[in-house]
Order: sequence, then C-alpha cells, then structure tokens
Amino acid sequence: MSTYDLVIRGGTVVTAADTVRADVAIRAGRIVAVAESLAGGAREIDAGGLLVMPGGIDSHVHLAQPAFGGPEMADDFESGTRSAIAGGTTTVLPFALQPRGAPLRQSVLDYHAQADGRSYCDYGFHLIVSDPTPSVLGQELPALVADGYTSFKVFMTYDDLVLNDRQLLDVFDCARECGALVMVHCEGYDAIRFMTEKLERAGKTAPYYHAVSRPASVEREATHRAISHAELVEVPIMIVHVSGREPMEQIRWAQQKGLKVYGETCPQYIALTADDLKGLNMDESGGKYVCSPPPRDHASWEAIWEGLRTGVFQTFSSDHCPFFYAGEQGKLNPKARTSFRWVPNGIPGVETRLQILFSKGVVEGRISLNEFVALTSTNHARMYGLYPGKGSIAPGFDADIVIWDPNRKETIRQELMHHGADYTPYEGISVTGWPVMTIARGEVVAEEGRILGAPGRGRFLKRSLSPFAAPRRP
Amino acid sequence: MSTYDLVIRGGTVVTAADTVRADVAIRAGRIVAVAESLAGGAREIDAGGLLVMPGGIDSHVHLAQPAFGGPEMADDFESGTRSAIAGGTTTVLPFALQPRGAPLRQSVLDYHAQADGRSYCDYGFHLIVSDPTPSVLGQELPALVADGYTSFKVFMTYDDLVLNDRQLLDVFDCARECGALVMVHCEGYDAIRFMTEKLERAGKTAPYYHAVSRPASVEREATHRAISHAELVEVPIMIVHVSGREPMEQIRWAQQKGLKVYGETCPQYIALTADDLKGLNMDESGGKYVCSPPPRDHASWEAIWEGLRTGVFQTFSSDHCPFFYAGEQGKLNPKARTSFRWVPNGIPGVETRLQILFSKGVVEGRISLNEFVALTSTNHARMYGLYPGKGSIAPGFDADIVIWDPNRKETIRQELMHHGADYTPYEGISVTGWPVMTIARGEVVAEEGRILGAPGRGRFLKRSLSPFAAPRRP
Amino acid sequence: MSTYDLVIRGGTVVTAADTVRADVAIRAGRIVAVAESLAGGAREIDAGGLLVMPGGIDSHVHLAQPAFGGPEMADDFESGTRSAIAGGTTTVLPFALQPRGAPLRQSVLDYHAQADGRSYCDYGFHLIVSDPTPSVLGQELPALVADGYTSFKVFMTYDDLVLNDRQLLDVFDCARECGALVMVHCEGYDAIRFMTEKLERAGKTAPYYHAVSRPASVEREATHRAISHAELVEVPIMIVHVSGREPMEQIRWAQQKGLKVYGETCPQYIALTADDLKGLNMDESGGKYVCSPPPRDHASWEAIWEGLRTGVFQTFSSDHCPFFYAGEQGKLNPKARTSFRWVPNGIPGVETRLQILFSKGVVEGRISLNEFVALTSTNHARMYGLYPGKGSIAPGFDADIVIWDPNRKETIRQELMHHGADYTPYEGISVTGWPVMTIARGEVVAEEGRILGAPGRGRFLKRSLSPFAAPRRP
Amino acid sequence: MSTYDLVIRGGTVVTAADTVRADVAIRAGRIVAVAESLAGGAREIDAGGLLVMPGGIDSHVHLAQPAFGGPEMADDFESGTRSAIAGGTTTVLPFALQPRGAPLRQSVLDYHAQADGRSYCDYGFHLIVSDPTPSVLGQELPALVADGYTSFKVFMTYDDLVLNDRQLLDVFDCARECGALVMVHCEGYDAIRFMTEKLERAGKTAPYYHAVSRPASVEREATHRAISHAELVEVPIMIVHVSGREPMEQIRWAQQKGLKVYGETCPQYIALTADDLKGLNMDESGGKYVCSPPPRDHASWEAIWEGLRTGVFQTFSSDHCPFFYAGEQGKLNPKARTSFRWVPNGIPGVETRLQILFSKGVVEGRISLNEFVALTSTNHARMYGLYPGKGSIAPGFDADIVIWDPNRKETIRQELMHHGADYTPYEGISVTGWPVMTIARGEVVAEEGRILGAPGRGRFLKRSLSPFAAPRRP
Repeated sequence: MSTYDLVIRGGTVVTAADTVRADVAIRAGRIVAVAESLAGGAREIDAGGLLVMPGGIDSHVHLAQPAFGGPEMADDFESGTRSAIAGGTTTVLPFALQPRGAPLRQSVLDYHAQADGRSYCDYGFHLIVSDPTPSVLGQELPALVADGYTSFKVFMTYDDLVLNDRQLLDVFDCARECGALVMVHCEGYDAIRFMTEKLERAGKTAPYYHAVSRPASVEREATHRAISHAELVEVPIMIVHVSGREPMEQIRWAQQKGLKVYGETCPQYIALTADDLKGLNMDESGGKYVCSPPPRDHASWEAIWEGLRTGVFQTFSSDHCPFFYAGEQGKLNPKARTSFRWVPNGIPGVETRLQILFSKGVVEGRISLNEFVALTSTNHARMYGLYPGKGSIAPGFDADIVIWDPNRKETIRQELMHHGADYTPYEGISVTGWPVMTIARGEVVAEEGRILGAPGRGRFLKRSLSPFAAPRRP
Repeated sequence: MSTYDLVIRGGTVVTAADTVRADVAIRAGRIVAVAESLAGGAREIDAGGLLVMPGGIDSHVHLAQPAFGGPEMADDFESGTRSAIAGGTTTVLPFALQPRGAPLRQSVLDYHAQADGRSYCDYGFHLIVSDPTPSVLGQELPALVADGYTSFKVFMTYDDLVLNDRQLLDVFDCARECGALVMVHCEGYDAIRFMTEKLERAGKTAPYYHAVSRPASVEREATHRAISHAELVEVPIMIVHVSGREPMEQIRWAQQKGLKVYGETCPQYIALTADDLKGLNMDESGGKYVCSPPPRDHASWEAIWEGLRTGVFQTFSSDHCPFFYAGEQGKLNPKARTSFRWVPNGIPGVETRLQILFSKGVVEGRISLNEFVALTSTNHARMYGLYPGKGSIAPGFDADIVIWDPNRKETIRQELMHHGADYTPYEGISVTGWPVMTIARGEVVAEEGRILGAPGRGRFLKRSLSPFAAPRRP
Repeated sequence: MSTYDLVIRGGTVVTAADTVRADVAIRAGRIVAVAESLAGGAREIDAGGLLVMPGGIDSHVHLAQPAFGGPEMADDFESGTRSAIAGGTTTVLPFALQPRGAPLRQSVLDYHAQADGRSYCDYGFHLIVSDPTPSVLGQELPALVADGYTSFKVFMTYDDLVLNDRQLLDVFDCARECGALVMVHCEGYDAIRFMTEKLERAGKTAPYYHAVSRPASVEREATHRAISHAELVEVPIMIVHVSGREPMEQIRWAQQKGLKVYGETCPQYIALTADDLKGLNMDESGGKYVCSPPPRDHASWEAIWEGLRTGVFQTFSSDHCPFFYAGEQGKLNPKARTSFRWVPNGIPGVETRLQILFSKGVVEGRISLNEFVALTSTNHARMYGLYPGKGSIAPGFDADIVIWDPNRKETIRQELMHHGADYTPYEGISVTGWPVMTIARGEVVAEEGRILGAPGRGRFLKRSLSPFAAPRRP
Repeated sequence: MSTYDLVIRGGTVVTAADTVRADVAIRAGRIVAVAESLAGGAREIDAGGLLVMPGGIDSHVHLAQPAFGGPEMADDFESGTRSAIAGGTTTVLPFALQPRGAPLRQSVLDYHAQADGRSYCDYGFHLIVSDPTPSVLGQELPALVADGYTSFKVFMTYDDLVLNDRQLLDVFDCARECGALVMVHCEGYDAIRFMTEKLERAGKTAPYYHAVSRPASVEREATHRAISHAELVEVPIMIVHVSGREPMEQIRWAQQKGLKVYGETCPQYIALTADDLKGLNMDESGGKYVCSPPPRDHASWEAIWEGLRTGVFQTFSSDHCPFFYAGEQGKLNPKARTSFRWVPNGIPGVETRLQILFSKGVVEGRISLNEFVALTSTNHARMYGLYPGKGSIAPGFDADIVIWDPNRKETIRQELMHHGADYTPYEGISVTGWPVMTIARGEVVAEEGRILGAPGRGRFLKRSLSPFAAPRRP
C-alpha cells in the first residue's frame, strides 16, 4: 500500500527562500512532506536535474469579459485556464467586472456561471468596481469581501470604467473599512482623451499612436494621484502593470515614506517596446501589441529590472487580456482600422509569463531563483489572501507545482500556445527555461505541452483578507 | 530751472543685482539717471541711511471680486491700492474673474469699471478662467491676451471655479498657442470635498478643521497633476501660493527635469501656522486665518526658505484676499459659524508683504537684499510682461520707488493698516525694516503712513507677453 | 527502533519565505524531513504554540581579540559562544585580526588555537586585514580564501587598523580577484582624530563626547568613499553596522544605481541613543554604551527601520564586542577616565540580538516573521558562504534550530546573561519573544537559560565563496 | 570742457539683473552715471546695437606657475593678461602657489615679482596651500588673508599639492577662523594613482587614458568628501571646475541641506569631451585636451547646463592653464610621450570663455543675458571680495566694460588668440557673439583684436573678505 499518492523525487525544490535537493510527497492533493528521501508513492516522478517550484499564480488575468459592443475576448475560462496550466500556472485571479448600472453581486454570479465547471485550474475573482453607488459601497462590496472576493480593481481611465477622484476616494474609503485590497489601473483618462483627439485630428491613427496617446508622464501622474488618495484615506493599494521608470519611482518614493503602496509589473514591460506597435513599417500588425499602459523602451526595461531587483515590485503578472488579431472579431476589424482608439486593448500572455521572467531574470543573472518564485507565485498568494494554501512548497500547501527544466531552450511561437488568441505578441523571442510538467492539487494536468487535466477540475477560491490590506474595521 | 523733477540723494540704491550708493533722478515720472552725484531737482529727497528700492509689485491680489452669495470682499480698488502704497507696493495685479456662464470680455469690462479712476497705484489684470467654453478658448482668450491681459489663472478647487483635468488641458493648450502665462491654484477639489464632508459628519467644524480638510498631500497631488498636464502640453506654468515642502519638492523636481515650472510663495507660509487657525482655544477667532492653501507648520517655513534660497520660487506675493472678521459681512457671520466650509477664504496682506520678507529674510540673514528686490518686484515684472518699465531702478523705468528704513523696528498692528479689513492676521508680529516713503511714477504717494496720492492716479497696465511663457504660435 | 534522532512536533516552522504548521525530523545532526505529521523520534519535543526557526547566525562578533595594550575583551570563545546559544544563536562568525606586521596566516592559527575545542557553537572566521603588504595581497589572502576564510574586513578608522585609500583600493582589488567578500567599517579616521583633539582641548572628555567626535556625517562620508572605491574596482562590498539615515541613504543610492553594495545594521541602532552615553547626568556610566559608530537618536531608529523594511539591509548582527565596565580591565579604568578616547570601544550583544529585533520588529509590526528569519539567519548564511547547510529549516540543512515563544514577556537584565561582561547595555529593556530552546546540529544545547551543550562541540566552518561577492577570476 | 572722460552711448547696458538702453559716463576710471542720455564726454563711443556689459572676471587662472621639473607654462603675466583683455576679461585671479617647504609669504612675493608691472589688467591672488605647517596655519595664512589675499585653494590630488584629510580639515578650520574662502580641487589622489598604475601596467598610456584614469566617480567621491569635511568644520567652500552630473548632484544636495557649498564650472565641460583626448585616431594630438578633471561626454554637458540653469553653479571660469603642445617645452615632449601621466595638465582658455558661454548659453536659449553677466563677472566679484568696485555697471564701480556684438559669428582659431600657447583646444568651434572693445578702468585696452593698453597698467587688487565665506572669528 502506498503511503503517498505521489512522490516527486530527486528534484531541486525552490521556494521564495530556499533552494534544496529534496523529495516532495503528496497526498489527497496536498503536500505532506518535504524530505531527503521519500519512498512509497503510488506514482513517483523523477525530477532529477529539474526544478520543482510552486505553480505559478497569475493575479492579473482577464477572461471572458463582456464585449461592450466591441470584439469578444479570445479566451473564455476554458481556453484561458488551459493556456495557464500549459505555461506552468496553477491559479489565476481573473476579474468580475461590474458593468455600469449593474449590481456587483449579479456580475459576480455571471462570472461564476462562465467559470464554474469549465476551468482547468483553480481561480478566484477580483471585482472591478465601475459604478460605486451608495448601495455598492454600503452593502454589496462589504458583503462580497466577506464572501471571499477580497480584492477589487478600479480604473483611472477607459470610458466604461473610469472613476473620478471623488469616486476613487469613496471606494478607497470603503476598502479601508472592509479590509479589501485595492488594485489601481493608473493612467489619466482626460489626458489620454486629450492626446487621442489631438492625434486623430492630425491623422495619426496607426496603432503606434496608441503609445503616443498615453505617454509615461500620464501614467506617472495617475500613479501619483492614486498614491495621494491612498495616503489621505490611509489605505494600502496595489499599483498594477507598471511600465517604466516614472511610475516606478513614484511607488518607490511612497514606499520609502512608509506608505503601504505595492507594485506589479508584467512581461510586456521587459520584452516589448513601443516600436513593436509600429508593426512592419507602421502597418496594422502593430495592433498585435496594443495594451495599456503601452510598452515603452529599453531604458524602461532597465527601470523595471531596477524595481524588481530592489523590491519595489511584489508581483509579476501577465495582464493576460487576449483578442483575435484577424477575422471578424479581430483587433483589426474595420472599425479598428480607422484609429488606434478602436483597437481592442490587451494582449495574451498567461502562458509565457514564467518563461520570459525566468530567461531574462534568472538565466541572465538579474534575479535569483527564489526571487523568481516569490514574484511569480508566493507573493501573489500572500498579497491576495491565498496564503497559506497556495504559493509555496511546504507541508499543508496545495500540491500546485511546476516542474521546470532550467536549461531547455525554446523559441516562443504561436503554434506552441494553448490560448484562444490567434497570435502571441512574444512570437520569436528565444528563452531558456521551460515547464516540463504542471501539477495541480496533486494531479498532473499538463506535460510537455499536452493537456492532461479536464476542464472543470479547477475550483473557485474563496480568499481571506489580504494581510497587506488595512485591517478590517470592527 | 531744474533739470529734474525729483532727485533722491544719498541713498543706497538696490536692484536685483546691485547695491550701490547713488543718486536717482526722475523726470516726467520716469527714472532718467542713476549717478554718483546729481543736482538740479525741483524737489530733492535726502535718502541718507535709507534703501532706495524698486516699488513692490504684488502679482497676486484679489480686489472687489463678486460675493457669489457670500460676504463682500473687504477691499475695493480704492482701499486695496491705498493699502498697497502704504506698504511700499506701487503695482498690483488683481484678477478679473469670469463667473461661469459669463463671457470673459464682459468680466474684464466689469473690473475695469471698478478699478479705473479709483486706484492709487498702477494695476493690470490677470484673468480667471472658470468656464473654458469653445468661444472662450477659441476667440475671447486669445483676443484678451493680445489686448494686454497676458496671464490667467485657473483653479483646481472651489465649487464655482474648479476646472476638471480635461478643461485644464484645453486651457493649457490655449495658453500654449497664444503665449499667455498660466497661473495654477493647486489643491485637489475632490479630496477636499471628501475630507470636508467627513469632518462635518464628525462634527469637526471649527476653523481649525479648514487646515485638516486640505492637507499638504492634497496640495502636492494637485501640484504634480498640474505639472504633468503642463509637461504633456509643453506649456510653462506658475504654481502660486506654495505652502510647504511637499509641493515645493514637486516644483523643484520639475525644474531639474528642465520643465518650465515656476513657483510663488506668500507671507502666510513663513509667518503663520495651522495652529493660528485654532484661535484662542479652538474658538472662532481662528477664522481670521482661513486661507488656501492653509498655513502649515514651522518645518514648512523652513522648506519655503529652502525654496526661496535655492531659486525654486521666483515671486513672493501677498495673495491679498480680505474679508471682514466681524459684522454683517464678516467671516464669522451666522453661516460661517456652522462650519469652516462657509468661512470666507482669504486674508489681507498687501500692506505687510515687504516688511515680513525683509525682516525674516534679509535681517535674519536668509536672503540677500538683492534677492529681496527680485522676489518682491523685479521678478514679478519680468514674469508678467511689465519689464522693462517696472521692476528696477534704471534709466527708462517708471519712477516707482520705495524708500526703506532697514533699521526701523515696528510691530504689525491693525491700527497701522490702510486696508478695508477689520483685522490683520499678522497682528503682533515684530519686524525690522519699514517703508518710509512710496513714490509712484515720480510722485510721492505715501510717506510715514500718510497717504498723499489720490485715488484714480493709478493707471491700467497693458502687459506684454511674458518671456517666461511659451512663445506665441504664429 | 526510532526512525529519527529527534522530532520537533506541532510547532510553527518559519523560514525566510514560509510560515507553516509542520513537524521537523532530525537525524545525525541534520534535518531530514519537514512534514505534516512525523513520528518515530528517539526524542520528541512538543513545540505546540511555539515558533521553530533557524538558529540565529551572527556574522559580526568579536571574541578574544588581542588587547593591544588596553583591557582584555570580556569574552573568550567559550563564554562568547555560550552567550550565543543561550540567546538562540547557533553559528557565529568572529574575526581573526591581523596585527600590523604579522603574517595573516599566523593570526588565523592564533585564533584557531583559542577557538578550537572551546566553542559551544559552530564558527567561522572573517579575517581582518590591517597590513596589506604585497605578500598578504599576493599570497596569503588568496590562499586563506581558498581555505574557507572567504570574507574579510577592513577599517577606515582606528589607529591600529585604519587603511588609507590606496590600501583600500588594493585590498578591494585583491578581493575582486580571489572572490572574497569585503566588509567595511565606514568611519573617517582623520575626521574623528580632528574632532577628538578639538574636544579634548576643550576639556570635553566624558563618554558622551565619543558620539560627538564621530557624527553621522563622518560615517556617511566614509560610506560614500568605500562605495566609490568599490565602484572603481567593480567589487561588491558589505557596509557593516550602519547607524542611521545618512549612511543608509548612501547604500540605497548605490543599490539603486545597480552597484553590489550590501548593508548590515545592529540592535544598538534601534535600541540605544547617544543620550545613553551621557550616563546618569554625564557620568562615567555612559562608558557602558561606547561603541562605534555610536548610537544616534530616535529619528535614526526610524531610518534604520526604513532600511530594514525596504531591503537596504541584508543582515542584522550584534557587533558583539564586550568589555568589562568595572574592575582592573574595565572600561572605566584610570586611563579611560581621562578621556572617551581611551574607553574600550564595543558592547556585548550576541545574546540579546534576536529578542530585540523580534520585539521591536515583529511584535510591533514593522517586519514580518519571515523577514526576521532572513535578517537574523538565512541572509547571513547566504552572504557568507554557509548556504546551503546553515540558515534554513529544510531537508539537508544542519539541524540548527531555535524554538521561540513569541508571547513570552521578559526584561533584559544582566543576571539573565551568559556572557563574560559585567553588564548589558540593554539592561531594563522589555521585550516580547524569547528563546525557549536552542538546538545545534540536532543536539539541545540550551533550554530555558540553562546551558546543556559542552564547550568544544562547536566546529570550525570552512566557508564557500559568497555568491554575493565577485566571481573569482580564473 | 568735458564733464566726463568717456561716454558710451546708445548701447544696451546689461547687469546681472537688468537690461536697459542707457548711456554710461566714466570719469577717472570709474563709472559715474548711467542715464538715458548723456553728453559731454571727452571721448564718446557709439555702442548702438551692441551690449555694454561688465568686463569679465576670471577667478580661476593659472599664470607663470613654477615648472616643478616639467615644462614651463605657456603664459606669463604679460601674455596671459593680454589674452584676457583680448577676450573681454578685465580682471583675473591667478594663484600664488606655495611649493612644499616654502613659506607662503615668500611665494606671494615671488608672484608679485612676476605680475607687478607686467599685467594688462587688474589682478588679485588666490593662495595655493600645499604645506599647511603650524606656522602657515597659525601665522602666515591669517596674516595674508588680512592683507587682501582672502581666498585660497587646496588640492585633493597631484603629487606636489595633495593634502590628506587631516590637512584639509586643519586648513578648513583655519579658513573658518580667519574668514577666508576655500576653493577645492576635488579628485581623489589615491584612486587616480591606483588607476594610473593599472593602466600603465596594461600599456594604456595614450592621452585618452588620462580621462579613464580619473572617472566621474573619483571626482564625485572627492566632492562628497570635501563637502563632508566642510560640514564638520562649518566652513563654506567653493568646489571648482565641476565636470558633470555626479559631482554637480553632490553640490546640489549640499546646497539643499543648507550647507554653504558653492560651485564653479568651465568652458571645457560644455564644449569638449573625453573623445577629444583620443586625438585623431588615438594619437598624441589628444594631449592638447589634457586637463583635470577631464572633459566627459554630451550627457555631462546637459548636467552642467542643468546646474547653471538652476543655480547650482555661481561662477563660470576658464581654469586657464596653458602649455605648449609642440617644441621643447611642449606637452608632447619625450617624457610626455611615454604616458599620459607626464603630459602637462591644463589647457588655455581665458580668451575664449565669454564667447563659448554666450554662444551656447545665451544664443542657444539656455540662460539669460543677465545670468551670463552674473556667471562671468558679477558673481566672481561678489564671491571673492571685489564687490562693490568690480562686477557691475553702476555708479562708483570701476569702468571695466566689454562692448559686445551679440550677432557677430566667428570661428575660434589659434590665429585669433593672444595667449602664449601654440594652440587652442577650442579650435574650429563656431560661436555667435564676440567682444568688440574692452575698457579697463576707463581706458580702451583692446579693440577688434588689437591690444591698445600697455603691460603694467593692471593693478594688484587687495580683496575684502568674501561675504560668502564664514565671518571672521573675532
């Protein structure tokens, strides 16, 4: 009779702190032992020469969001989570978006209807608050936080989502009271509108002008503004998808002042530049790289590394937000051809997040293996109320594990991807380090690019209050 | 026959650069010679032992603004300019405020109706743009700039004046095109409203909470935002009435980046603190000190001196904005007693500006005599298109001169004042240095506190484009 | 038959990354398993309600250094390591000091003679290079580094130890070549001598003037200088015992520039101030607090916390350097009474390091439990080539463990101490959190203040090259 | 009978504050009137369309310094001051250098012997203290300061001049006591020696390696060190010839802290780069650009402009220090060909200082005309105790005037120069703005490149204590 369901033998186990040669034993979907030498697994996996790391947690993923009259997203929960596990990620935190005028609770139910029974990996929901009515702030939001939706995102731009400063302050105040963690998309709506109209009047409508319409100073300003509002309300906030030096320095300044301001960055800010938006000779293929904030330049990459290296950023997420480039639903459908303004805003990336950070970070010597684990898994779990349980390899944790070949060289190509989109913006980038096997709650769900799990095995995660948020007021 | 109308003999002539023993000759209201020894004046004034300095220019003064349903201002153009000349100031730049819905041109005519023929000293007008309609931005503002109203102010707070970010950007863009200099009142409207309502709900309505409702972080945020908008539009801006370290550091950061961002500060930020707003034991006399931004604390004084010393600030103005403390029109009329929100916002100061800066700055060794002249006169003339002509003692300049006793000790008291208000917030402050005589375009208009000029002798000043603004686009 | 020599059951195991409820199994002095539930220990320890943490590693300890004509140190290797294990520390890294003129190798042998067979816990040696002759730099130092003495310290002050800038550069260059990590004591010798002589001429000789003679600016200057030399040579350095904001900001600036500059701080810089040096009314008891750099003030404490919180400092060490206060060998022997210059420079602290950081850091909410473990143990092991093996709780590591009661309240008192000194400078400080049991390589060596191990069981640790140093040049 | 000896009519008179159309009257070598319209000059000069500015003051000039076994300087007092007046400079402040072992007073007498009766323009002496013996600090230096040698320079590098930190502190302390202003050459001796030897060992001896041997970090370190010593002693200091961002930021940081630290920069740091030291293909002509600190790169130029624009620098000097490039005494004599170390260190520049700053600063819009006057004349006079008397155009000042054509375009060429050197490092640089006429104490001494004055008409200037130094202790 086997003592364990599964033993991973002979690998190098990496946590956010330690790198040790050890075996890992799993029973009933949970890690029960990390030891020098373990036998007795019903199944045993030889991880010799490989890294055994906590499965990736991607805390910034958009799946199956409503089209708002534009094109559909390229990923539903099935394809999106399939892509995640293929890339070594075992937990995703997509957003349940409140359309203006709709009750928040109903939005959550709508997303559950889409996600439950269809996901390959575990998932939770951040809320997106677009309409902070008194009932939303007074009843719905506190109730949802109590129900395990313990974080929510607000936007400082986008027609359908933008909150004005007063709304931001009221929402922050609500978070302060109920102990939720607020994520903020920091770009200034009015400035972008001003620039967009100016560019359009000048006939500058190609995808490249997307980047011109929202320069670093606009992101920096919104970052400063969000930090100032948070300072006034005394609430911690997470600044998501930071693109370069200017907003990074605002976050660092806040952290040094002692404010609880956290930062997230993404693969596009160390692997793409605004020049990618030019496509081949300012053509429409630049539309493949439209996301916000836009990727900047090589100097910005260095600023992002400085932030990663010195602890300004806690999480490295994908901001996966996929659209079709070609076809009826594509980015470059007829309307999108008239101006960058109508190009769907977002790129796929949940499947390539780990490889890009590992290759450019660990292999090229900018961060340690342990920092890699912290940035891709542990810190996400800690930040969003999934810890303990997710985010490490230790007794009692879910057996969410990626077995990683640190030496495998690969070139990112669309044909390797499992997402719904018809392209990857990282096409042609060479990386070293690739997921060999993904284990989710003890089950091998992906191996060498083959999907072994089934949709629907992923569970909804009711999350605890974040220890990084303000304590809930009694 | 006299060669000159007036010769000022034996004084120490101070300009923004030089301090020299020289005589000054005046003819037809203008300075015609500065020389070692001049004779032949129809009148000769012995300035032995005294300083002969350019008359003060106060580029931030509110006079006779409409009540908007609240109390009347305590100064019309007659009393306000009388107070100015009594304090050694020979030019003021009040504001012509556009009420929402009104044409800008009509507002200007209304102010002329109040000012023309009633002023003791020369004056120009900044515009206040509260309603940037297409016709205001497209026609009125450019036309008024061409007519010599070459600067205007916008507000980031106050119910009747606040512009949103898009309006700010459009107004900045207009200034960029027509070469006007923009002055910005930097405090965040929504944040103040948020704090005010919170304080009122908590019953914290005494004048002191005025300061709590608009903390330094709120001023800093708006300063950063204004700078960012100006950076986007590539337009120079002047940040007015800076109160302490946080906004000062934003301006310095912008200047070091190479942005054309200028700074102004005021006596209240080196002579008053938020504690003054407590009155005697949190009583209503704190209402005497209600102004915005509010005075902060002693550490803020030091930050302001650091800014003055290192060139962050170009101008030192009064932000004179007087109201009655007692009586029907007073600050503490019945409505104002219900909350700090209704206390009229502003304090008198045009008459005490020079003495406070001289005493705390020159006498206490923080700035030089020449810096004093630059901060109180020359830089105002340069910044706002009055140079040459105003702002120095040199051939060809208007004979606007203050003769100053650097050793006279005095205590500021309401009984010494010539303004319309029924108090001075600087009551009881001891100073060294006092104006002995004020000469405006060659005429002695004030001497030892006696007013010798007549209302109506002050002329309207049609101003040139500021060399510190963007060059007008052809 | 028992499977394990020892099982620690039911505790909360804390590493630099994780906090988990788990049992820990030990065999032959090493950790072999961390698991949910383990049985079969020859001995089992119930750690319910307690923390199970890696034993402290104190990488900055002075023991049995030569007297140089002054008083003897209060601790030899026996008493010093006894004090360490009583306080939960299981590894110390004292210094093997090269007297000028002596070969480095002989110094190392001398220290081995003192340490080997007398220590209660494991130990390694940093070298102190006071005389970088060509043979020291060309032969001795590289050979000793190859033999496992992989770090050394240099001094920018002290008559018998100070290196001039050229020597520092040559020594740094040597470290660059052979892959050693350099620790730098940053205080400017000439400035201190200048101040000391000035103070003595003014009759200011009480212990308090020790702090006046070496102000923060002198430490900051030397820190900047060391960083600049390291930048020139392209060698990583560790700035030890940082006392406050000014040097901390230099290190941060270097780190942000991308230089490999590390920082250490100590309990005295968050628990003592220069006022302690005044004793009771400027009396000689101030001599109990004489150490270098001197403790500063409360604002400096906050700066140190800022550095700890934001990752500027990697290690928290004691700089244990004990002398007798009373008696023939005491600090206040006749010569020391004549001037602070002759008061022996150093304080005991190896036994109270963990309690002070735990209480002020973890209990008061400034750092997390995991940061505590990193700062007191893991990072020391990583920085100084003891990892893996020391510094974590994971399979394969030495079973160096402290079992900690996070709730126990205690007041630090000399009668609780196990060191050789006749006082503790932390007398009277109340702390929460105290070591219950210390386990060294699987053996319980201290329990509730009782010493159970024997002198001589501690082993010399031959250390690997630090991964934080420059790679050795082939 | 003429009222005045000379009237300059119709020009635009520029001071550090003002730009006015005015006539200037001169009698007995002094300015007696600045007026709208003056007649009655024995000589009248038409300055219509031209600028009338204070003659340049060059406070950093090396003339006729001893060879110390190397080549002679290319300028004695006659040729050096001839070059000065040809370039619009009317006052120079060379150095009286104390050779080690020599009394300071004797050095001063030696320089007087060289200068008196041979100079074309007025001059004072800074002292260079290379040997701060007790008698130098206790008697000689205070006596010389009292005699009008109120400033002195110290070096942190150069074999024959370098002071160690203790000497710097003692010298600073002496300056603090006697009210002298200290100028500091900030480059770290040991670091340069370390780099030089390393480069020489690697056979890297071409002139270009001069720049490599003393990188920006070495200048920055010494700047920080000098500032720290000055902070300790509480003495103002002037950091001379700042070459780029790193030292500039140190000075700015000190100024913002409130320390009295001043800054000087030079033409070579906005007009030359280290690449000039490569000569044509790393050949010996690079030796023409050897000076210290070396010129850096274009980014450094921008940093210098940032410092000039924001007030970090008070003076713009030439650091004129000429040597022959060819011939027996040339830079590239046989010994200099063996290593950059032996190339005489310094370049000529007293004649081209004004044109370079005017062209790149005023004409290209980086600084104002008034800032130009302040940086080239007024601030030098104020800083070094020549004010009033020198440095402005106002009654009572010496009639030291340069009449300047702001529109004249010229290319700097050796054939236009009046110095003793056989080249100019600025050869081929095109400038706009050129001196038309130089007037020294009322006498036209140079006109259109022709020298009209005679050697020996220049007088020694006994200087007052600098108001920017510490007040002399009674």
